[in-house]
Amino acid sequence: MMSVANISTALAAQRRSRPPCLWLTGLSGAGKSTLASLLEQRLIQIGLAAYALDGDELRTGLNQDLDYTDAHRTENVRRVAEVARLMVNAGVTPIVALISPFQADRALARARFAPDEFYEIFVDAPLQVCERRDPKGLYAKARRGELARLTGIDSPYEPPSQPDLHLHTDADDAHQCVERIIQLLRV
Amino acid sequence: MMSVANISTALAAQRRSRPPCLWLTGLSGAGKSTLASLLEQRLIQIGLAAYALDGDELRTGLNQDLDYTDAHRTENVRRVAEVARLMVNAGVTPIVALISPFQADRALARARFAPDEFYEIFVDAPLQVCERRDPKGLYAKARRGELARLTGIDSPYEPPSQPDLHLHTDADDAHQCVERIIQLLRV
Repeated sequence: MMSVANISTALAAQRRSRPPCLWLTGLSGAGKSTLASLLEQRLIQIGLAAYALDGDELRTGLNQDLDYTDAHRTENVRRVAEVARLMVNAGVTPIVALISPFQADRALARARFAPDEFYEIFVDAPLQVCERRDPKGLYAKARRGELARLTGIDSPYEPPSQPDLHLHTDADDAHQCVERIIQLLRV
Repeated sequence: MMSVANISTALAAQRRSRPPCLWLTGLSGAGKSTLASLLEQRLIQIGLAAYALDGDELRTGLNQDLDYTDAHRTENVRRVAEVARLMVNAGVTPIVALISPFQADRALARARFAPDEFYEIFVDAPLQVCERRDPKGLYAKARRGELARLTGIDSPYEPPSQPDLHLHTDADDAHQCVERIIQLLRV
């Protein structure tokens, strides 16, 4: 059994070395939530505190007052970046899974962290592939005209110009993608 | 040296037993931030991940778009409660230091947690004592008419009717108050 002092030392060490923020951006259906969940489990196995901040879940809590207009998408990204920063301060690796379609908003998010503390990870799959997967039925709804402002359909997605990592979830499976993130982190 | 497996087990154990949310409410100058900071250190010494969510600090980040009208105070409390909930999910004990003057807002915050997961701690000192301390010079400013809507002066404070703990920081020193919170938590 581990002593309280040992746990304390481990946690103190973890707090001294601030964890990074992992920011997964991409279209709905590209695989962000799946990867975030697998990555959270993997980091915890390695011995790191980690937490998946999922855009859809946050829309039911912190961001429930926001809609899908451009201004509210910007505010959505801003708040999630602030929460991720608090997680980093608290010694927890935040794994953000958020469409975050606008380059400028992601740049503002990055600016809230130290240069080596933020990893922009482009979770990429062609729109046709995302639309075929359609895990939440959003593309079908949008095509039927029942849902407005869906990213990729009638709201733009600006792909990262220089992501720290570019994953192709149509070519690589989820576990391969997670391993590429783990390699990026060198943990 | 502790193995990765041991740290992992400790963190997993911590995640299984969800930590509580400690919510410190009271007037400006009552001692919330001081107690939150000391308590954070004390819990980390004991071996628990903990993080002080300080109202003033959050006003420079997540809540920088909010003012001191009643509606924005309500929104301020709502967001902090959501962040605290995410911290609990992530296995970190949030220590909220927030005036949170309205009973109804604190009740909504409590409602976001399981019944045994939320502790309302009334950090109490008479207004005269807080005004004499005036660590941020806010009371002096308010008395000079340079600051509006200061809680206790021209904005109401509704004291908790049934706090889980009632601390009197004019009678007990900070370390005694921290020990009373530790006893409450039985850690």
